[in-house]
Amino acid sequence: MNFASDNHYGVHPRILASLGEANTGSAMAYGGDDWSKKSEEQLSRVFEKEVRSFLVTTGTAANGLSLSAITPPYGAVLCHSEAHIIGDECNSAEFFTAGAKIIGLQGPGGKITAPIIEKCLTGFVRGERDPKPKAVSITNATELGTVYSADEIQAISRLVRPRGLMLHMDGSRFANALTGLGCSPAELTWKAGVDLMSFGGTKNGALLLDAVIFFDLQLAEDFARRRVRSGQQVSKARYLGAQMAAYLQDGLWLDSARRANALARKLAEGLRQSTVVRIAHPVEANMVYAIVPRKLNDQLLASGVKFYPKMANELVGQIKDDEIVVRLVLSFATPEADVDRLLELIRTG
Amino acid sequence: MNFASDNHYGVHPRILASLGEANTGSAMAYGGDDWSKKSEEQLSRVFEKEVRSFLVTTGTAANGLSLSAITPPYGAVLCHSEAHIIGDECNSAEFFTAGAKIIGLQGPGGKITAPIIEKCLTGFVRGERDPKPKAVSITNATELGTVYSADEIQAISRLVRPRGLMLHMDGSRFANALTGLGCSPAELTWKAGVDLMSFGGTKNGALLLDAVIFFDLQLAEDFARRRVRSGQQVSKARYLGAQMAAYLQDGLWLDSARRANALARKLAEGLRQSTVVRIAHPVEANMVYAIVPRKLNDQLLASGVKFYPKMANELVGQIKDDEIVVRLVLSFATPEADVDRLLELIRTG
Amino acid sequence: MNFASDNHYGVHPRILASLGEANTGSAMAYGGDDWSKKSEEQLSRVFEKEVRSFLVTTGTAANGLSLSAITPPYGAVLCHSEAHIIGDECNSAEFFTAGAKIIGLQGPGGKITAPIIEKCLTGFVRGERDPKPKAVSITNATELGTVYSADEIQAISRLVRPRGLMLHMDGSRFANALTGLGCSPAELTWKAGVDLMSFGGTKNGALLLDAVIFFDLQLAEDFARRRVRSGQQVSKARYLGAQMAAYLQDGLWLDSARRANALARKLAEGLRQSTVVRIAHPVEANMVYAIVPRKLNDQLLASGVKFYPKMANELVGQIKDDEIVVRLVLSFATPEADVDRLLELIRTG
Amino acid sequence: MNFASDNHYGVHPRILASLGEANTGSAMAYGGDDWSKKSEEQLSRVFEKEVRSFLVTTGTAANGLSLSAITPPYGAVLCHSEAHIIGDECNSAEFFTAGAKIIGLQGPGGKITAPIIEKCLTGFVRGERDPKPKAVSITNATELGTVYSADEIQAISRLVRPRGLMLHMDGSRFANALTGLGCSPAELTWKAGVDLMSFGGTKNGALLLDAVIFFDLQLAEDFARRRVRSGQQVSKARYLGAQMAAYLQDGLWLDSARRANALARKLAEGLRQSTVVRIAHPVEANMVYAIVPRKLNDQLLASGVKFYPKMANELVGQIKDDEIVVRLVLSFATPEADVDRLLELIRTG
Repeated sequence: MNFASDNHYGVHPRILASLGEANTGSAMAYGGDDWSKKSEEQLSRVFEKEVRSFLVTTGTAANGLSLSAITPPYGAVLCHSEAHIIGDECNSAEFFTAGAKIIGLQGPGGKITAPIIEKCLTGFVRGERDPKPKAVSITNATELGTVYSADEIQAISRLVRPRGLMLHMDGSRFANALTGLGCSPAELTWKAGVDLMSFGGTKNGALLLDAVIFFDLQLAEDFARRRVRSGQQVSKARYLGAQMAAYLQDGLWLDSARRANALARKLAEGLRQSTVVRIAHPVEANMVYAIVPRKLNDQLLASGVKFYPKMANELVGQIKDDEIVVRLVLSFATPEADVDRLLELIRTG
Repeated sequence: MNFASDNHYGVHPRILASLGEANTGSAMAYGGDDWSKKSEEQLSRVFEKEVRSFLVTTGTAANGLSLSAITPPYGAVLCHSEAHIIGDECNSAEFFTAGAKIIGLQGPGGKITAPIIEKCLTGFVRGERDPKPKAVSITNATELGTVYSADEIQAISRLVRPRGLMLHMDGSRFANALTGLGCSPAELTWKAGVDLMSFGGTKNGALLLDAVIFFDLQLAEDFARRRVRSGQQVSKARYLGAQMAAYLQDGLWLDSARRANALARKLAEGLRQSTVVRIAHPVEANMVYAIVPRKLNDQLLASGVKFYPKMANELVGQIKDDEIVVRLVLSFATPEADVDRLLELIRTG
Repeated sequence: MNFASDNHYGVHPRILASLGEANTGSAMAYGGDDWSKKSEEQLSRVFEKEVRSFLVTTGTAANGLSLSAITPPYGAVLCHSEAHIIGDECNSAEFFTAGAKIIGLQGPGGKITAPIIEKCLTGFVRGERDPKPKAVSITNATELGTVYSADEIQAISRLVRPRGLMLHMDGSRFANALTGLGCSPAELTWKAGVDLMSFGGTKNGALLLDAVIFFDLQLAEDFARRRVRSGQQVSKARYLGAQMAAYLQDGLWLDSARRANALARKLAEGLRQSTVVRIAHPVEANMVYAIVPRKLNDQLLASGVKFYPKMANELVGQIKDDEIVVRLVLSFATPEADVDRLLELIRTG
Repeated sequence: MNFASDNHYGVHPRILASLGEANTGSAMAYGGDDWSKKSEEQLSRVFEKEVRSFLVTTGTAANGLSLSAITPPYGAVLCHSEAHIIGDECNSAEFFTAGAKIIGLQGPGGKITAPIIEKCLTGFVRGERDPKPKAVSITNATELGTVYSADEIQAISRLVRPRGLMLHMDGSRFANALTGLGCSPAELTWKAGVDLMSFGGTKNGALLLDAVIFFDLQLAEDFARRRVRSGQQVSKARYLGAQMAAYLQDGLWLDSARRANALARKLAEGLRQSTVVRIAHPVEANMVYAIVPRKLNDQLLASGVKFYPKMANELVGQIKDDEIVVRLVLSFATPEADVDRLLELIRTG
């Protein structure tokens, strides 16, 4: 039983099959192939807008490259203090931006709001001795398994765009956010004011598939050079394009996310029946954060259940000494029976 | 007919099949899986030495990360002026090293020699106003399709190691160099004084497979952080490990390179029969540089033959106005019939 | 009346005179002159140890260069959240370190303690996804006008040195810390475990005088190159050396700091008589932080008194809406009568 | 006798006196003072145009900061292969630009011409694998003591501006170039297409005085942050402003340069009488490059004459084994008698 991460699961058979389909004859390298072109066309169709997309190899690279396109070295990026870009990527944002300041803000449920951002911006009072706020980065679905609505994003955009900040979305679990909300990709991104995003497929059934998508096409100028320079321009790019093609084909990406989210809801509902476990954050995507007795935690690990502890700052003071917060991630491929078994283990723990 | 690059060709069926084999159940992410471990064990066996290996996503990343481990920002890297790291990677070496100087030296056949390097080193006379020479990077097989012998490498190492410089090998076509020479991987690398290398599989039949290999294990300290920071730590790393496993299994990598090199020799021999075409550089790996009349060049392109012009600095003055230098690359998958057809086209051109 | 900063005051006459003395004939540039040599000798004498010193042009440069010598790009620097390096230098630490993470910790009185640092270090649990803690930087005297004792520094050193972290001191007001404590320069630095420091003279009567001083001489290797590379190697270096010579000569630096500290104590004692003003932080150097009614604040400004508001995080919740925290800085040249006049204005405010 | 460099000489008495004049009372730090304002006004008057100027502490910093404002990390800067930014500043341009490529071009007399630049630009044929040419940097007077005329600069500007490149001038010896030509500061800079420049006073009699001057005011946006971030924002900025004030007052800068240039001409004329010494480059500013017999070189050094050997690439093949190229620099303060004595030593050598 593996609830450690969605990236512990494998590749969807249709995506793997697509690699085989792409494996015929020779093709232009570095994105000059048909699969890469098809990928960009599909993304434009999915987002109901001409986009410029750049396939890269990891979500970290997608984030770092995105930020580098909108933040000068003397700039600042505002994000949540739980954001992947600040806590899980070993100074990557600083590397790609050549030293911008990444500022983590507190906000309930792993989300920052327009008022939280506004308050932070009022603190930039020292002129040139402060970095210049140039970007806001939100993660959707968030690191805590919650989801920003289109309205919440729009509120942020309305605040920051007039002040010259760009809005980036880390969408490593974008499909999970989307299917939970029932709005369109366009509504959750550029129509709500997102300027560019990291679009992730790896956690949702691809092998290695991340893209930077520009809704503001002007920002994409010279981005191809940034991609080469960072070692993110894959030579046999057709195999990235082929993944994207299969990922988007016939809504595979949404079906996969829907399944993972449904399992998360099922798990959360089961946990709510428990008298010893509490749900830590709203379950709006494919992750369940549970506050469990340390004894139960140890029993589950001993039973071979895989998962990680992860406690958000905002829970400080709410957890007893004999409790621990664990993150349970559901994926497109998690067996439903594993959810049942886990709930049974907890019930009988 | 495609002679444009070896990375225009696809993935070897055994490597593709290995992806399928790896696609079962869940596995630890970020390299904690069995395939990743197996990959490092195999590499240690291949090199007859315990190595530390880090799978990354492109040759550019492997080069940049390698250099970052051995060159401080105030340092200098010496390489040939035709080196990929100086001419094909859009400031990538500068990015990864945080601004080191990459110095391109002239040398016949795309190779630098110990005396050439020594002469360059004597020019560092200005103390702290000069960068500090910290690394030499050689490409084997070279960008011009020639090959450094173990002796040539050893001569370089003997010169630079006592002076505190590290020796890096860009081995994006390492298999092609190796099979041409008939020596062992160990003899062509650490036994000849190479401290670390970029080990490439992508050009030789893998989908996306590059590794940084440390023969000096101490240099590898903290390298895992460099990899994360640069967005080069793939989450579903098992699919990189699975490629490496198949690539090295039963000598697939050497067989593939042998085939490509043999085709290159065949093509070169055919061209030598021509009265209008000259060979520009020694053909020692899987590339043939040919000096062809511009008219023939145009005819070939019009016939649908794919290849790129590429003239090395050292040919300046040797090419007539109505001539052009073209690079013809052979791969593990180039149909032998294509070589025959190309020679026929040239004969009848 | 100017209490805005010690760097609003001018140059001590003896230091200005020293510039004139140095202005005879020609001298080697870039530090090859006699004044530069004398400066290093004096510093070695002052610190009772052979040091390596590098004169630079600003405190920001001294800090950034210091950190660059001890922190790799994938590293982290721990400091107080009020530290100059995190809040007043516009991403400078990130620039000089090529993107290290600068982590601000809370601690009373603008100081971090060994237990605070230890707690932070326990949070680095994610392996290569976290930056590697490599340095602690403390400011002495602190940004809040308090002072670390030698014992407090030693406690930090004893914690972090065995864990591989270096200890840097930002000594832009080192003289003010020193004279307050009555210990020797050696006792407050290397004897307490400081590995390198930014030694500032500008705020204490020099024109432009900052130095990086290495107590661990090995760390200084290649530092001359870092200085050139960052545009911090002054050509007519004799005029920096001449400032240092005069600054250290006959204890001028200590006398100047003693005077400034005495004025601060006098001001603080006067303020303690007031019924409307409170002292915010212990007054241990040459700065007084006062919590004043906003009305009084406005009156003082209207009377032409110059000072800045500056509220530390730790005061949040302790300040009423109609209050404001102001920073009053005393310098070697602040007229004592100005202190009397300010106290009078407050009394009658 | 010191002909080693103009920065081996001291500070002009009027500039030193100006420091004393500025040393009264308190003044706003970080450029908020009257002297700093006066400096910018004077520069605007001198250049007959509203400029934005930023005082910094070294020519290297002025160059690096200038380039950082016009060159992204994936960009390239074209300059002469003898340029200070490529050969004397230890990777500084790479540091300030976060890794741009600095490309040195050959050109007679240390100058690059529009055709030379155009030819280089035609080599950027590989799209995103090449850096993007974004800036040209010329040094005036050049490192070889020659001078670009306004027409030559205009020709460069006419070539590169339509192609999106900015034109930077390293004017560390701008006064020496100007007085040699007899044109106005405006004619030699913005009227000829220069977008921004490093304006140096240190080599011409100031203590420490370099400025970045923007003729294109838009480029100056956010530059104040770049200056702070690089540790180049001096706190007691009035002492830089006071130097600039005195430097420009009553044409001191031009008088000083005129004197140095006249001495260079006198020295060159004297050398032309010699049968054993040849002049290596046209003497158009305050430097004389002389090809001297090694024996004479040794005699002069033994006699206590200070100077450095410096051979430009373009002289390769023109120098005999028993000859050496030496650089003789004249300054505002070089005693005329020293020129006479040097000529006498050579005559009698």
